[in-house]
Amino acid sequence: MEPIVQVMELFRHQRAVRTFRDEPVTDEVLHTVLEAARHAPSGSNTQPWRFLVLRDAGVKADLSFEYELAQATRAGRPSPSREQAEAGMIARAPVVVVPCVTVPGRTGHAGFQTGASIYPACQNLMLAARALGLGSVLTTTHRIRRAEIHALLGIPVTYESAALIPLGWPGRAYGPNRREPVEMAVCFDHWSE
Amino acid sequence: MEPIVQVMELFRHQRAVRTFRDEPVTDEVLHTVLEAARHAPSGSNTQPWRFLVLRDAGVKADLSFEYELAQATRAGRPSPSREQAEAGMIARAPVVVVPCVTVPGRTGHAGFQTGASIYPACQNLMLAARALGLGSVLTTTHRIRRAEIHALLGIPVTYESAALIPLGWPGRAYGPNRREPVEMAVCFDHWSE
Repeated sequence: MEPIVQVMELFRHQRAVRTFRDEPVTDEVLHTVLEAARHAPSGSNTQPWRFLVLRDAGVKADLSFEYELAQATRAGRPSPSREQAEAGMIARAPVVVVPCVTVPGRTGHAGFQTGASIYPACQNLMLAARALGLGSVLTTTHRIRRAEIHALLGIPVTYESAALIPLGWPGRAYGPNRREPVEMAVCFDHWSE
Repeated sequence: MEPIVQVMELFRHQRAVRTFRDEPVTDEVLHTVLEAARHAPSGSNTQPWRFLVLRDAGVKADLSFEYELAQATRAGRPSPSREQAEAGMIARAPVVVVPCVTVPGRTGHAGFQTGASIYPACQNLMLAARALGLGSVLTTTHRIRRAEIHALLGIPVTYESAALIPLGWPGRAYGPNRREPVEMAVCFDHWSE
């Protein structure tokens, strides 16, 4: 994908990329997308996040197995083999980012609005990736195997994992994204369908 | 604020803007930021959102009263007068956007990961606003008075309100945002503090 600096074009060209070329993501590129993430807003600017960056092949393979199990559970398919897991998106991505957010002490668990302090950072990270020509996708399916994945990665009970975001150079070309016309999703001054 | 087209500069210059000039936001500008929102990713690209756009002074004043009540409740302050509410951020913003998301049928309520299908759209909307020189801020404090606000705006039980986002031309100049160094919030391959 070509780099993009025009903001509106950037929004229009963010796509879910799940297959990656066998080409490394440099430290510099990785730093740039993480920098973008940390500039996101969060509740009272508390910046309650931690970004777990996975590059080790063994760790990605173990995570991929849990992720493919989660996918299979959701789809009602039989469990994947270890081999299948190693051919999966998570194992094959050069980098996987796991954005985590502090669990609010008040309630003891991450609720709907906790997402307001981590998903904007995820979006900044993915937009920055796309701006550089890098592909990514956000999945929350891993949460079906949340306990096992948190144990695997050592995520403490004080944090919640918001997503898995694989990153890499796209394996093919992508056109602009497709969306419903905005008029279909807007109402003025009072709810209407 | 000056318009921004360089993406990384855009991230660095998103600020929480709470005071606005007495100058209208045109339909064209509003359309642009809503277009940006709808290009955001969502779970399985379901686009499960609806954007309630408030411009009517009476509606904004009523909402402002509930919002100021929520703020007062959170801070343990006495309830605001109607006059105080009408001087508040929500009443004085030329436009207030209330992004709403479909409540998952499976669980019957919006959970943490429901946010993955609406907060990226909020972030696109605010980034597009900033790119145009428009100020905004995301607040979830309204949720303390969620029932009253949903009744006021006619939001059905099948939707959850993710935030209030006031929009307007900033009342003053803003420098870049301030964040902790990214290294403080990143770990590699396994959790570490």
